[in-house]
Amino acid sequence: MSTHTSDNVGVVTPTVFNYQLPFTLQNGEALQGFDLVYETYGELNATASNAILICHALSGHHHAAGYHDNTDTKPGWWDNCIGPGKAMDTDQFFIVSVNNLGGCHGSTGPESIDPSTQEPFGPEFPQVVVKDWVASQALLADHLNIERFLAVIGGSLGGMQALQWSIDFPERVDNAVLIATAAKLTAQNIAFNEIARQAITSDPDYRAGRYRLEDTNPDHGLMLARMIGHVTYLSDDGMASRFGRELKSGDIDKDEDVEFQVESYLHHQGRSFTQRFDANTYLLMTRALDYFDPARDTDDDLVAAFQDARARFLVMSFTSDWRFSPERSKEIVDALIAAGKDVAATVIDSEHGHDSFLLPIQRYTSALNAYLHHALSRATEPRKT
Amino acid sequence: MSTHTSDNVGVVTPTVFNYQLPFTLQNGEALQGFDLVYETYGELNATASNAILICHALSGHHHAAGYHDNTDTKPGWWDNCIGPGKAMDTDQFFIVSVNNLGGCHGSTGPESIDPSTQEPFGPEFPQVVVKDWVASQALLADHLNIERFLAVIGGSLGGMQALQWSIDFPERVDNAVLIATAAKLTAQNIAFNEIARQAITSDPDYRAGRYRLEDTNPDHGLMLARMIGHVTYLSDDGMASRFGRELKSGDIDKDEDVEFQVESYLHHQGRSFTQRFDANTYLLMTRALDYFDPARDTDDDLVAAFQDARARFLVMSFTSDWRFSPERSKEIVDALIAAGKDVAATVIDSEHGHDSFLLPIQRYTSALNAYLHHALSRATEPRKT
Repeated sequence: MSTHTSDNVGVVTPTVFNYQLPFTLQNGEALQGFDLVYETYGELNATASNAILICHALSGHHHAAGYHDNTDTKPGWWDNCIGPGKAMDTDQFFIVSVNNLGGCHGSTGPESIDPSTQEPFGPEFPQVVVKDWVASQALLADHLNIERFLAVIGGSLGGMQALQWSIDFPERVDNAVLIATAAKLTAQNIAFNEIARQAITSDPDYRAGRYRLEDTNPDHGLMLARMIGHVTYLSDDGMASRFGRELKSGDIDKDEDVEFQVESYLHHQGRSFTQRFDANTYLLMTRALDYFDPARDTDDDLVAAFQDARARFLVMSFTSDWRFSPERSKEIVDALIAAGKDVAATVIDSEHGHDSFLLPIQRYTSALNAYLHHALSRATEPRKT
Repeated sequence: MSTHTSDNVGVVTPTVFNYQLPFTLQNGEALQGFDLVYETYGELNATASNAILICHALSGHHHAAGYHDNTDTKPGWWDNCIGPGKAMDTDQFFIVSVNNLGGCHGSTGPESIDPSTQEPFGPEFPQVVVKDWVASQALLADHLNIERFLAVIGGSLGGMQALQWSIDFPERVDNAVLIATAAKLTAQNIAFNEIARQAITSDPDYRAGRYRLEDTNPDHGLMLARMIGHVTYLSDDGMASRFGRELKSGDIDKDEDVEFQVESYLHHQGRSFTQRFDANTYLLMTRALDYFDPARDTDDDLVAAFQDARARFLVMSFTSDWRFSPERSKEIVDALIAAGKDVAATVIDSEHGHDSFLLPIQRYTSALNAYLHHALSRATEPRKT
């Protein structure tokens, strides 16, 4: 147990990994090098056997824990789970958290300058996919002298990366922790993503993606996209507990723009998102979600896709998550069992929908903590024979 | 059983009911008269005891069965259920189907001319609510010399009207058939409606609702609103059966606008909707959904709200309907039982989500048919005592 009086990692400073060689993507295009911005929490041990890679989801980034300065009011997005004594205990693990290629928080992406034109890439940034992210993260691991991760962990789109790591780099992943994810999206999920993309691209301020050059921003489209995402990441029951159907004003008045509390909340969420997220990145990330399909190369056979994986797996999902439902996790678990892999799986009761994976739910964080603790024991203290 | 060789009602011609007195709405505003366009199918019997009122849903209208001319390729929206020998058997019943106030298919609504300005009402059309619709439908019933409906039937927003009928006109409803509906919306449902409204009102072509005067139309916003509605009216499994995740083109190519079959389908649905639906009507109808709350006048006590109802009730819902889930129907059934009412209820297995109520699902149409058959027997052949 931790003896820290504080339960967070304190002030952290991001680092930039600058890769200077050409990097060829799955679609055949190449980047002439790239930057990946990342943070680390905890210390790498002498044998480099305690490293955990965190992969982020659709609207995430590298800043998963702690604060960027002493005036920050909000910690990193997974601070519930990362810190001294927490599920990902920084007293025991060395945690690496990276902003993906195509992101808008410091890694090379649509807002970066295209060296061939000296203008921002904008909509011309190549479509990266999950395999590209995994390949770029492996280059970062090389740079950090991490030959093998004790665990690669992610929720949602992050879980897809952890899954792909187990397939693409079987020797470099001891454990893959797949949370609230899917081996591929359903038609419904693709449909929601497409509506979000339509909201952005049909905004006149989108300007065919060249809004930065024309000094506009598709605020309305991005706001709608976020509102759609937000509602679908919550559950019906969770929203009922949180908002009921309270009228914001005392009675119905059609001249008010906002009448129910839930509307006010959604407007706020949508608007604040436009301040901190790039529309071209949102388009790119949703497409990466849609395209993810590790069984594409094995004739739709997920069991065959997992055949060479060597990791142990922990697969977790949440009862009220209807965008990445427990059924989708079961498909992964079934395929892992059929492929003869070592898999632990659990479904966590929660009314918080897909967002559950970000929350400090006792059964969830305890399971993650215990799993990682045992993983570290196995890695550092091999059984006597 | 019907001896018709055809199973539909053939060519039907809408009629306009022109009400010429002031009509005061729930919000205190008044219309200086109104038009209601309606269709009828079947014949009213001598005692006027076989009349059924159909109430339409969000994007519906009066044209529920048959064809408007011989070149029509699509029949009315509930043709599956209305016709000779069908669940609502036109050999037995006289069916009235009306376009609601505020609609865009012939009844007085935002596209109508405001007599006080001689311009289209547009966004100034008063916010009508379910109680207003029921009151206007009762005036139409008076006009048709229907003192009492054998049944008032509706799905979704239509079911809300049938429910309100049983409360507002207890003496005029023998049976209320509430299909895939709710006694009030959940926060999630309100949220989806609000996103749809935001999509419309943030479209620059919406012009604060005065798009007709400025010769524009908020096509993009209306298209998005419809896409959101459409996805949420289907189920995840239903979409999976229908679309899988088939790529439209052979492989991933980011230059294509549409890559998955489901995207193509949604685009088509969205675009065709903009041809046939008015944006101000869509806003008005979604607000009527949000505001529906028959227990508002009885301190949130739905049992008390039903206290004076005299109808028998049939309440039906569908397993995969997640916007108007079986849980919402159970709330209605529980309140009816607690209020001592006569209620039959069933949950129908279907993978087609909320749209199920429009489909010819055997158990569903059989139950409706049997219920109405027995209702008519009771009405026309009172038991010997």
